Amino acid sequence: MDFYNYESRVNRPLMAKLSELKSSNDRLKHIIFSAQLDRELLEHLASVADMVRALSQSREGCDFLSSLLAHKRAMLYFTQPSTRTFLSFVAACQLLGLSLAEVRDPSVSSEVKGESPYDSVRMFSSYFDVIIMRSVVPNFAECCSYLMNDLDEFNHRSVPIVNAGSGADEHPTQALLDIYTIQRTFRFAHPKDSSSWTRFDELRQKYPALTRGLSGKVYGFCGDIGRGRTVRSLAQLLSRWNNITMYFIAPDHPRLRLGADLKNRLLDAGVRVHEVQSFDDAGEDGRPVIESVDCLYMTRVQQEHDKGHEADAYAGADMTRYRLNRELVNRMKDYAAILHPFPRDSRVGEIPTEIDNDPRAMYFRQARNGMWARAALLAFLFDVDGRIASRFQKDFSDFHDYNVGVL
Amino acid sequence: MDFYNYESRVNRPLMAKLSELKSSNDRLKHIIFSAQLDRELLEHLASVADMVRALSQSREGCDFLSSLLAHKRAMLYFTQPSTRTFLSFVAACQLLGLSLAEVRDPSVSSEVKGESPYDSVRMFSSYFDVIIMRSVVPNFAECCSYLMNDLDEFNHRSVPIVNAGSGADEHPTQALLDIYTIQRTFRFAHPKDSSSWTRFDELRQKYPALTRGLSGKVYGFCGDIGRGRTVRSLAQLLSRWNNITMYFIAPDHPRLRLGADLKNRLLDAGVRVHEVQSFDDAGEDGRPVIESVDCLYMTRVQQEHDKGHEADAYAGADMTRYRLNRELVNRMKDYAAILHPFPRDSRVGEIPTEIDNDPRAMYFRQARNGMWARAALLAFLFDVDGRIASRFQKDFSDFHDYNVGVL
Amino acid sequence: MDFYNYESRVNRPLMAKLSELKSSNDRLKHIIFSAQLDRELLEHLASVADMVRALSQSREGCDFLSSLLAHKRAMLYFTQPSTRTFLSFVAACQLLGLSLAEVRDPSVSSEVKGESPYDSVRMFSSYFDVIIMRSVVPNFAECCSYLMNDLDEFNHRSVPIVNAGSGADEHPTQALLDIYTIQRTFRFAHPKDSSSWTRFDELRQKYPALTRGLSGKVYGFCGDIGRGRTVRSLAQLLSRWNNITMYFIAPDHPRLRLGADLKNRLLDAGVRVHEVQSFDDAGEDGRPVIESVDCLYMTRVQQEHDKGHEADAYAGADMTRYRLNRELVNRMKDYAAILHPFPRDSRVGEIPTEIDNDPRAMYFRQARNGMWARAALLAFLFDVDGRIASRFQKDFSDFHDYNVGVL
Repeated sequence: MDFYNYESRVNRPLMAKLSELKSSNDRLKHIIFSAQLDRELLEHLASVADMVRALSQSREGCDFLSSLLAHKRAMLYFTQPSTRTFLSFVAACQLLGLSLAEVRDPSVSSEVKGESPYDSVRMFSSYFDVIIMRSVVPNFAECCSYLMNDLDEFNHRSVPIVNAGSGADEHPTQALLDIYTIQRTFRFAHPKDSSSWTRFDELRQKYPALTRGLSGKVYGFCGDIGRGRTVRSLAQLLSRWNNITMYFIAPDHPRLRLGADLKNRLLDAGVRVHEVQSFDDAGEDGRPVIESVDCLYMTRVQQEHDKGHEADAYAGADMTRYRLNRELVNRMKDYAAILHPFPRDSRVGEIPTEIDNDPRAMYFRQARNGMWARAALLAFLFDVDGRIASRFQKDFSDFHDYNVGVL
Repeated sequence: MDFYNYESRVNRPLMAKLSELKSSNDRLKHIIFSAQLDRELLEHLASVADMVRALSQSREGCDFLSSLLAHKRAMLYFTQPSTRTFLSFVAACQLLGLSLAEVRDPSVSSEVKGESPYDSVRMFSSYFDVIIMRSVVPNFAECCSYLMNDLDEFNHRSVPIVNAGSGADEHPTQALLDIYTIQRTFRFAHPKDSSSWTRFDELRQKYPALTRGLSGKVYGFCGDIGRGRTVRSLAQLLSRWNNITMYFIAPDHPRLRLGADLKNRLLDAGVRVHEVQSFDDAGEDGRPVIESVDCLYMTRVQQEHDKGHEADAYAGADMTRYRLNRELVNRMKDYAAILHPFPRDSRVGEIPTEIDNDPRAMYFRQARNGMWARAALLAFLFDVDGRIASRFQKDFSDFHDYNVGVL
Repeated sequence: MDFYNYESRVNRPLMAKLSELKSSNDRLKHIIFSAQLDRELLEHLASVADMVRALSQSREGCDFLSSLLAHKRAMLYFTQPSTRTFLSFVAACQLLGLSLAEVRDPSVSSEVKGESPYDSVRMFSSYFDVIIMRSVVPNFAECCSYLMNDLDEFNHRSVPIVNAGSGADEHPTQALLDIYTIQRTFRFAHPKDSSSWTRFDELRQKYPALTRGLSGKVYGFCGDIGRGRTVRSLAQLLSRWNNITMYFIAPDHPRLRLGADLKNRLLDAGVRVHEVQSFDDAGEDGRPVIESVDCLYMTRVQQEHDKGHEADAYAGADMTRYRLNRELVNRMKDYAAILHPFPRDSRVGEIPTEIDNDPRAMYFRQARNGMWARAALLAFLFDVDGRIASRFQKDFSDFHDYNVGVL
């Protein structure tokens, strides 16, 4: 792929790029990097996602939501296979009324006729109002956002680019939904919460130091730490909260353990970082890690990224120690959340199905949260989040605070 | 495929399963087996299909229909190719306003990453409100309905499963549209019917014993009887009506002729069952079968189900005797209906195109009926059939009974 | 493919076919040949396209447009890959509210089961209200229109066929959008036009003979003239205007240069036809062609149509002379338009990206015009163009004529 004049721009430090991805009114113009999601924006998007979820429970709310962007058309340009991300974007667009078109198979596209990928993307921008893209080519979504910015500068048509996964690199909307799931979990809301009883108060009987929110929590990341883009993105976003402890539970293998760059970045952000090789290794307080974590983020060893000799290199690593089982889960805190970016590998079994009905298993809700979070992001990009908030306040004005978390 | 704990449930007798596929209010929860379609339900769905068809003739009716399920999203999960079933479900969903997403190519799905098919289906249920599925894996749709029931029991999200064809096994919506086509045919309604003339009265001049409805009729099934799931399903559903005669016109080959199990089931239900090898074999009344049938159901020899040596085994069977031609059709009763589940095989020519304009050729109408029947089924699953009936009564209140059949 | 009884109809002269493609009220019934687009219809469709474009600028206009055909369903049957044509039809349908279904991969269709392509198309017509098709099989769209006409004659369901590209042969909607782009360009409208200044008046200072419209202009066609269906169609449509000059700039190679049949047809229509081998060859007035053209239509050498020995045969042709560059463009008239049917070939570089920001580069606007022009055509086929005109007159009644061109 020819990066035209984008190569030098790609090679700049991340911080130098972020301002280009904002629009004049300081909203997001494109979403390319998870670093664009600051804590304030993450809190805002979580609140929009909650409101979309609540409104969609009634027929009237659905009709309102699906009218919001009924005049817009989205292109889903997914040349890297991804059923889950793809379908949750489809559902998110449908919730907001966006019309959809998709290009998934690069072999049917005009690129076989020698078309430059930039011509293809500019073509998409001719017909559609947002391009949601996933590609194996690193930095391709980023470069497309530069293309759109250049077009804008010359008063040509320009549309937002949404990065739905770029190589082994960035996957900002996955980070968004991971954070949203943790935000919801650590609200400790319960359908039976009332003025006389809340689950949070009950939990505090057993865990007196428990607080609401992401700060002050212990996060475990297990499995493929070195290459998993979801771990990298999530850990960095979590580092924006205060008083964070992280355990990275992975084999001591150069490809799989925590990389030095990420470790340094987390340490610089004030995170207490620990690398261990087992759930039973002792943590800060001397107790086994599995009993300490408030949130455990499991991952799959991503074999599809492997190139021959690399796969061989860590074939010796004993991955059985990085699998959950019933007994381990029973030792976790009552309220601890188990997440997984999915798909999980049924051959490896990092989370066996016997865990699925445990109340700590959040991974299916996490998948569904992807739909709400992506709908919130699209609403924000198209500046209709304010209308969602107005409608929500009207429809749910007599709603008690302690119920909002479970809407 | 790992059936988890479903294997024992799959191995139960059919009758033991049916109650699990109903919802608490005795409506269908999932549609998996054609045996779920009892005579009362088939009559009800035919009437809903008629009303959908009638309403869709006006712009206002279309707008009413497409508002019914505009807040719902359907997943079409078709890993076995099937253009006709797929497209008629697409059109049925669009008629009712359902948003659509599809997964057709298993190689782009997360299953290449080791995801269990049950995780995939549960993921679909996270984003969509009904899963319409077709698979080469026998019992897969059935197992998915058990998965959904289990989820429901644990208060997790659960959505209806619609079996759109499962291996060589069950295809209940094909059976539904076949019955619907026969129901419409044997109403003997005609656009010119009036208080002074009806086609039915005219036919009775020539066929004095003719009655309306499916009871008391002679049904012929021709071609691949042994393996065709459509024949099996349709014959069993027809056996619910009274005084039924069936001719199975097939080569005397163990793979192709009527199987003992189906034969016994039909006999138990009181059907008069006859196996013949030719259209010209004599029937009950001594006349050639081709002149006796009220309805002739043609089939294609389904070569795509064949495994090498099986195909060889009946290569000797003379299939030319199981093809229609102009002369044979001319000998059929004036009102007899020729059906075919389609696609027909243009290389084999079981129904040559010269028959297409004969008034007895119902197979193209049958295909279009698939759209109406599937729309009726979806309306029933989502409990909006009552609203369709109310609207129909309002819009067509001054409609004469003798015209309803041709709406 | 078996042409049934269509072969003799295909072999008739074009003029004998055109009346069959009209409906009783003299509107188009199917769109198969660019020859169906007479000058009056092209002017009408351009005006409808302009109105669709203008209305789509407001949310209310979008809602109006997407209500027009919300009760209709379109089938996109694209067995020949074509991202651009496909997506612009998708967007055009979405603009008008049409529901969509697509069949793109012939291997998943029922044709692998031996289904005749005509059965497939008739099946599509059972479920959908228009079939937009692209095929590698020459004349297939034409034959499908005969199938639909025959069905109509027997009072069977029949729907319009839209040819979206048929073999190396006909591509009428490409010709439509090409003409529409030239019509818009030669209006010389400018966003800053007012009663006191217009771009047209300014241009006339430098080019006193300049007139508005397609007549009296000099058109250049460059590259693959012999096989490019877009060149053939566009040149023939342009010949319907008056006082036209055309330069065909191509290698002197039997496959690539202007064919005798097209040349004769253009001469018969009164076009002044010139064949040259270079942009610098002298034209009618002695000036180099590149400085004479009012509109330059570039093309790609369509390697995907090549069969082995043909590709070899002109491998020797020096194609570098048929590429634009900055210096050549600088010598063109200020207002000259550069078009290209796209995709352009980034390996060949017939239009290098350095030209993209030149005001003469019309090729990206041309692509977007495809969406408006196709929406106009669909509106015309379904007879809602009158409603578009009424709404436009209502919403834009106080609009000045000199602004209409840039809406």
